[in-house]
Amino acid sequence: MIPEITAQNLNSDQFINEKVTEIKDTVESGIAINALSGGVDSSTVTMIGHRALGSRLKTVFIENGIMRTGESEQVVGLFQKLGVTVEVVDAKKEFFAALKGVSDPEEKREAITQTFYKNVFGRIVKESGAKFLLQGTILTDVDETVAGIKRQHNVFEQLGIDPQEAFGYRILEPLIQLRKDGVRKVGKALGLPAEVFERIPFPGPALAARVIAEVTPERIQTVRQATGIVERLLKGTGAFQYMAILHEDRVTGMREGKREFGQQIEVRCWDSVDARTATPTGLSFELLTKLANEIIAEVPGIVSVTYNIAPKPPSTIEAV
Amino acid sequence: MIPEITAQNLNSDQFINEKVTEIKDTVESGIAINALSGGVDSSTVTMIGHRALGSRLKTVFIENGIMRTGESEQVVGLFQKLGVTVEVVDAKKEFFAALKGVSDPEEKREAITQTFYKNVFGRIVKESGAKFLLQGTILTDVDETVAGIKRQHNVFEQLGIDPQEAFGYRILEPLIQLRKDGVRKVGKALGLPAEVFERIPFPGPALAARVIAEVTPERIQTVRQATGIVERLLKGTGAFQYMAILHEDRVTGMREGKREFGQQIEVRCWDSVDARTATPTGLSFELLTKLANEIIAEVPGIVSVTYNIAPKPPSTIEAV
Repeated sequence: MIPEITAQNLNSDQFINEKVTEIKDTVESGIAINALSGGVDSSTVTMIGHRALGSRLKTVFIENGIMRTGESEQVVGLFQKLGVTVEVVDAKKEFFAALKGVSDPEEKREAITQTFYKNVFGRIVKESGAKFLLQGTILTDVDETVAGIKRQHNVFEQLGIDPQEAFGYRILEPLIQLRKDGVRKVGKALGLPAEVFERIPFPGPALAARVIAEVTPERIQTVRQATGIVERLLKGTGAFQYMAILHEDRVTGMREGKREFGQQIEVRCWDSVDARTATPTGLSFELLTKLANEIIAEVPGIVSVTYNIAPKPPSTIEAV
Repeated sequence: MIPEITAQNLNSDQFINEKVTEIKDTVESGIAINALSGGVDSSTVTMIGHRALGSRLKTVFIENGIMRTGESEQVVGLFQKLGVTVEVVDAKKEFFAALKGVSDPEEKREAITQTFYKNVFGRIVKESGAKFLLQGTILTDVDETVAGIKRQHNVFEQLGIDPQEAFGYRILEPLIQLRKDGVRKVGKALGLPAEVFERIPFPGPALAARVIAEVTPERIQTVRQATGIVERLLKGTGAFQYMAILHEDRVTGMREGKREFGQQIEVRCWDSVDARTATPTGLSFELLTKLANEIIAEVPGIVSVTYNIAPKPPSTIEAV
């Protein structure tokens, strides 16, 4: 049982000092490494690790081909301003090869996990000489993994898997007692700009979690375009999280008077405090119409757009 | 080119008299037959045909297993009050056998068409001795069939198929110059009660058009339950049409703390005058939430509910 620190009870400066000390004491004069996705969790971990270890923390951004438009450039540029050098590793081919023909959500996550840890990050870690891996696991990830709802890709220890034996390194998880609202507080205290710590959550398997059934470069491109529209139009809502999901089901449509057996995008926009429960945001019908019209006009192959109206539970925030 | 009679230009009484005369002159002393689904088109045709031929029009209701809850009882009871005897024919097994393993929407329609005409209705017609079949085809069906958007099951002649040669009887289509709003006007003039002529359109392939991919008795039961909730909650909206669609895609959900890889219902509710173009009805978020919550609570296996926000075109009213 991991003792939770609620956002209300959290003293950010004290928390940061404790974690910095813990990391220093554990890593000693060694080298640590971490993978930065640009999300609030991994960004916060990068800042804590950098404060503890300086340049002895090597931070990499793995370009897996399933990120949003311009994501690597944005993340690298932002951390450069904060004095943190981030190395970009292009691993698109390896990820798409692993995802080929995989439809089951759990197998998809597994393919991404295995590619990430064993093939790509494992290799980078071995080459770096680091023995310590910093990870942004939070308490909600642990809860959902233990409950068997989803297998998060970053909670080996909670699943009883020994990462030292399995992958040759040790995982440090400084945020594991926090939930999302706590992490935001810590990120703010670490001087991360608003665009990071206020950033909406984004799943570990990235856009692969936004594609029902098989993930291909073409289908990722479709959901990437829709995601750009959804994030642009819903940024001002103050919602907890919003997303576009590409369905596998085909629906009848018509273009220029001809039948088109097309694709459907589902938009989800959530109100939530900590992701444990969530309700769909009551967006205005004007905004919903704008969303649908822009997606239809700009994303090739899309003839239908829906908006999620079911709460979590029994739904989950992500569909895959 | 069929000359359209717009609802505005339509003189209902004159129209009815002309059609009654035409049917009398064509059928002479023969027997005619028609299949009543309970929709506004086939109900109106039944009344015109009955006025022209009396008991020489035999009206059957084919229980195909893909109708809504209580539909046959409702339709038979209603026409009994209007002095029209309707015979119910149970053909559930034949329809489900024809639909087994069929996923493609066009093949599904084809299976239903073939089962309806060749296997079931063709047999009934032959046994009845009727040489004339009355059908409720309207102009919108013809447009969509000619454009190749959908193959309606009742427009053989427009497709260049000779029904006399193919099935041994002749089809009379008294409503073919009208669109939906015109048919409603005629139905009202014929004395049909509000519950019929104001009834929302329902597709020929019935609930099979509301199931993406394979149609099974179990999947029909799921979409039937959802349809009951949608029709009950949206009846008061004055919308043109509303429906529940069962998706084939599975989405992640959770019940009692456990992961459930569940099913999704899409709700569509349309504003339209004549079905040629349509826009989603701007339902209140309160009503959308109520819809989602009732569907989730009452329909086994459903963990997610969406609401369509795309217009026709490029969407179509039905998904299948």
